[in-house]
Amino acid sequence: MKKVAVLGATGLVGQTFVRLLENHPWFEIRYLVASKKSAGKKFKEFAAWRVSDHLGETEIKSLEEFIKNPDIDLVFSALPASVAEIVEKKLAEKIPVFSNASAHRYEEDVPILIPEVNKDHLELVKVQRKNREWEGFIVTNSNCSTAILNLSLKPISKFGITRVNVATMQAISGSGFRGISAMQIFDNVVPYIEKEELKIENESRKILGMLKYNHVIPANFGISVIATRVPVLYGHTEAIFIELEDDLAKEDLIKAFDKFDPLKKYRVPSSEKPILYNEIPQPKLHIDSGRGMSVTVGRLEKIGNKKFKYIVLGHNLIRGAAGGSILNAEIAYKLGFL
Amino acid sequence: MKKVAVLGATGLVGQTFVRLLENHPWFEIRYLVASKKSAGKKFKEFAAWRVSDHLGETEIKSLEEFIKNPDIDLVFSALPASVAEIVEKKLAEKIPVFSNASAHRYEEDVPILIPEVNKDHLELVKVQRKNREWEGFIVTNSNCSTAILNLSLKPISKFGITRVNVATMQAISGSGFRGISAMQIFDNVVPYIEKEELKIENESRKILGMLKYNHVIPANFGISVIATRVPVLYGHTEAIFIELEDDLAKEDLIKAFDKFDPLKKYRVPSSEKPILYNEIPQPKLHIDSGRGMSVTVGRLEKIGNKKFKYIVLGHNLIRGAAGGSILNAEIAYKLGFL
Amino acid sequence: MKKVAVLGATGLVGQTFVRLLENHPWFEIRYLVASKKSAGKKFKEFAAWRVSDHLGETEIKSLEEFIKNPDIDLVFSALPASVAEIVEKKLAEKIPVFSNASAHRYEEDVPILIPEVNKDHLELVKVQRKNREWEGFIVTNSNCSTAILNLSLKPISKFGITRVNVATMQAISGSGFRGISAMQIFDNVVPYIEKEELKIENESRKILGMLKYNHVIPANFGISVIATRVPVLYGHTEAIFIELEDDLAKEDLIKAFDKFDPLKKYRVPSSEKPILYNEIPQPKLHIDSGRGMSVTVGRLEKIGNKKFKYIVLGHNLIRGAAGGSILNAEIAYKLGFL
Amino acid sequence: MKKVAVLGATGLVGQTFVRLLENHPWFEIRYLVASKKSAGKKFKEFAAWRVSDHLGETEIKSLEEFIKNPDIDLVFSALPASVAEIVEKKLAEKIPVFSNASAHRYEEDVPILIPEVNKDHLELVKVQRKNREWEGFIVTNSNCSTAILNLSLKPISKFGITRVNVATMQAISGSGFRGISAMQIFDNVVPYIEKEELKIENESRKILGMLKYNHVIPANFGISVIATRVPVLYGHTEAIFIELEDDLAKEDLIKAFDKFDPLKKYRVPSSEKPILYNEIPQPKLHIDSGRGMSVTVGRLEKIGNKKFKYIVLGHNLIRGAAGGSILNAEIAYKLGFL
Repeated sequence: MKKVAVLGATGLVGQTFVRLLENHPWFEIRYLVASKKSAGKKFKEFAAWRVSDHLGETEIKSLEEFIKNPDIDLVFSALPASVAEIVEKKLAEKIPVFSNASAHRYEEDVPILIPEVNKDHLELVKVQRKNREWEGFIVTNSNCSTAILNLSLKPISKFGITRVNVATMQAISGSGFRGISAMQIFDNVVPYIEKEELKIENESRKILGMLKYNHVIPANFGISVIATRVPVLYGHTEAIFIELEDDLAKEDLIKAFDKFDPLKKYRVPSSEKPILYNEIPQPKLHIDSGRGMSVTVGRLEKIGNKKFKYIVLGHNLIRGAAGGSILNAEIAYKLGFL
Repeated sequence: MKKVAVLGATGLVGQTFVRLLENHPWFEIRYLVASKKSAGKKFKEFAAWRVSDHLGETEIKSLEEFIKNPDIDLVFSALPASVAEIVEKKLAEKIPVFSNASAHRYEEDVPILIPEVNKDHLELVKVQRKNREWEGFIVTNSNCSTAILNLSLKPISKFGITRVNVATMQAISGSGFRGISAMQIFDNVVPYIEKEELKIENESRKILGMLKYNHVIPANFGISVIATRVPVLYGHTEAIFIELEDDLAKEDLIKAFDKFDPLKKYRVPSSEKPILYNEIPQPKLHIDSGRGMSVTVGRLEKIGNKKFKYIVLGHNLIRGAAGGSILNAEIAYKLGFL
Repeated sequence: MKKVAVLGATGLVGQTFVRLLENHPWFEIRYLVASKKSAGKKFKEFAAWRVSDHLGETEIKSLEEFIKNPDIDLVFSALPASVAEIVEKKLAEKIPVFSNASAHRYEEDVPILIPEVNKDHLELVKVQRKNREWEGFIVTNSNCSTAILNLSLKPISKFGITRVNVATMQAISGSGFRGISAMQIFDNVVPYIEKEELKIENESRKILGMLKYNHVIPANFGISVIATRVPVLYGHTEAIFIELEDDLAKEDLIKAFDKFDPLKKYRVPSSEKPILYNEIPQPKLHIDSGRGMSVTVGRLEKIGNKKFKYIVLGHNLIRGAAGGSILNAEIAYKLGFL
Repeated sequence: MKKVAVLGATGLVGQTFVRLLENHPWFEIRYLVASKKSAGKKFKEFAAWRVSDHLGETEIKSLEEFIKNPDIDLVFSALPASVAEIVEKKLAEKIPVFSNASAHRYEEDVPILIPEVNKDHLELVKVQRKNREWEGFIVTNSNCSTAILNLSLKPISKFGITRVNVATMQAISGSGFRGISAMQIFDNVVPYIEKEELKIENESRKILGMLKYNHVIPANFGISVIATRVPVLYGHTEAIFIELEDDLAKEDLIKAFDKFDPLKKYRVPSSEKPILYNEIPQPKLHIDSGRGMSVTVGRLEKIGNKKFKYIVLGHNLIRGAAGGSILNAEIAYKLGFL
């Protein structure tokens, strides 16, 4: 069993990490870490939502204390970007960091990892260690909407993606416990999420890019996103219009989605069939598919020569955040990076 | 004052007709008409939502009775398509019919009218009268999402639209009083609305088409729609990706939206500035702009050579249904068709 | 293993029966039964919400066919009251019927059973068999709000209840899949549910009544209910004001709630600690407590001499419907009535 | 025209003050005042919700600046209680203050005024001036739920109220723009609002108390409240159980509600018939009745000897806050206190 710490454990993503790690076969929570003002309190006091029973009595350790002597094997970070910026680097000198924060995603030697999509990018870890003289490393997962989108794009990418237009309908939980007030989003659609569109666009090009000579050459398809917030608790829905180099039939695409299962042979604890097909994907019906790790694709139609439209839906906190990061650690472990 | 009847007066669109006509300067409600089972009851018994006070005491007349002797000047129809199919034709033999039903939209000599966009299509009324030997005629308004979309497309169309991809986020009220159960849509996004996508695609091509030799040559740009239902009561939000023949700057488009006001000179009672620009259009803040007759455009960005994305939002029951139909009648009156 | 059928299996309560019975240690689903128009289709086609995977392929049997030859050991009924009226009696001639319908609740020899509260009322089954010359019998569970309320009242009843005033805030799911339209309840509170208040009042007096000489003498405390519907999917919340014969301290009542566990010794599969105490009971946090079989009490305060107020919350479909009925069957089995 | 300032103008109650005062026949907004960090900005920047068009360009003045030289005739205060505590007293030395804050409600010489209920309590203003040697004074309005409740209690009070039990279902807007996060209240009922129950209980006894020898003798009926928050934007619904000294018929109470209109003779701008009766009061249908100043009573039933239950519903921001305060100022003006 690897000993792990969850940083930012009191937030919504942090608590999802705790829930998913509670009975994990490989990773054992040693520390729940949060800011100074939470230190010393029990986890259950913060777990105002979706409480984990077993770990409720665990005392929160302050980040300050923790980094003095992080006697663990790896770290999961749900820290805010501004805190992650410094702390994750410090920790990575000694320990592998699997981060949900955006702070280091755009650095050249840091992979944005979605194992089903670009597990070869894990090689960047070696570059990172060499560049920075670290014993540990940083592996980030992508923005939640990016993860869901790119799982659906990967099996299509072999037909040559030239352009993707995406309209997202994102859940409230994507903004944390207190990120959105009820007065703002109740009976409303808010077609703006700060920095979200740019994140999805840039991260997608990096994730689908090619690893070559120790760095990633971004994929060069066109991608534009309109990100909206809708009054739904969990589950990001994305409406996608895509243009390809090859012409093919709807059935070819459905087959590509269905056959896509690149982690099958590795049998890591959190891996599931990545894409399920259902005619009308809906948060209420499908976000928990594959324990929240599968995305659901549906409404696929050919809309012209080399053009398709479809819907993809996934669990923003599991597939798009904590679950994705844990899968990253599992595959890193399996492939000998830990 | 022209005497009018509202057919299908007890439904959600019917009641919106009543509310908007209540103090209309040109049209005076003479009959509220609905199915046999509602006949004889007072309007207020049906007006379970958003009751009109003045007309609450009016007795509902049965459609059967009404069509025997429709002693009025024009008809507003919010009938279901299957009923409208026969009844509207029968009435149009003698009386102008302004219909919100989809039944006749796709007939060659029937205009789908959005006065700010294609008021010249009103000429089809003459063709219709000649073809069918009618004294009256049928003018339809478009599907609610189509109306909102096409108001935003019209000022852009002079730059040559080659392709439009649209993801709609449509309000619950678009499906009528009892169309969607709370269990279906609460905390959910449903990316499917029966026939909606095809309606928007086909109607848009006809509305933006050119009237030539007594019929409309559909506009030949590509258009694809993904229609979703979101948990919002009123107001359809649409995320739009558009490709043009000309290259231009974001500012050129904003100017085109701002200058667009083709009905200004006619001063009919329901006309308003058709497009308002607001950075983040939201149902809660903007659906009542221009008494529900203005759509709100925002989030406009250039996303590549000749490519733009933007949001358009409008009131589905007013601009997209009853209000649009009343505007059709007003402009028909102003232009001498009544 | 007892072979069971679920009648009305396609509705919301019916599907909850199926879900809870799927891996039951004593009961095995043999038939899923519904109306003629559903017959022959697979269960998964109806399971538009919360689909059960295992049983999805099961073919629905028509009620008509089923009652011709009901070769099973017992029946769970989620039939509408009007259908239950006749069908349940017919079946009870041969087979035990555990019914969620209100049709027979008010008959003198039919128990309204909540095992933790009045399992002695099961004796009525013998009276019933004798009166009606049946081999089977009918055991009803109460209305959903009644069950949640009476679980909280039972441990208090030893202090002599003289009056109870209850305001309920009931979930949408209490009205079935299509019972309430989104336009009605969205952003609204509807303080009226047909017949609900009278049901809760009358059923409570019967449930807390005393079995004597083969019939139940209703408890004679005053009880008044105001029933409201609120925009929540699952979980009925009830605000309760209660007056007692004895004066006691808040702590005495909390102790009474805490010690209350009358089924502990029987160890039947669906029994859980019936009452949990949590300062602020909330649907989101607590409806799944005890697999949906525990109610949560909180906000208890003494508000005067012999007077208290508190909140009780429970899962309307599990504790208040299907789960309650299954517990009834389990306890009947354990006590030798099957 | 009296010149007025709105303190705390950028919050939800403050903005409601602005909206209601915009075209007021007696009061003219001279200053919009808020905290230092808002000062210098335009009102429209804050008016993220329900923007007032006319006043959008007005520059916010800082509270600090304002109190140096408050050259106005009266003040409406929507300040937070902690700020109101000091500032309102300071201002009242010179100027009448009509406050929505709870800070001074419980002082002996400060009236909690609901003009239809206790306009005679305005006499306390004279006591206040004498006690404190002020030229101005402070008149508070009650907590929002208190106002709605007491309007319904006043016409009943002549029959001798002995006990009132109230369960409130309060709207999100009662907690301000950012008071409640969407994650907390969405699909939930939260049966706890800080200090709310005590406020309603104590304020009601003072409001319905008798003015005698320069102070109010609190009414001595029993009152208990359970306050809950429900996912509704505007409108507090209250379920009420009441016990009286006299026995009477349901019709007597309905008549008492209907005849209740004590401000009729004064004809001040904001007064409306205070109580409307509707069988099923609902936020969506009735909160705007009487421009938000009327409460709606319904579901009245006799539930025993001298006992009744009913529902009362009102607009929390208008009747329960800004509108109530403006009515206070109007009646004070009419009666010569300004």
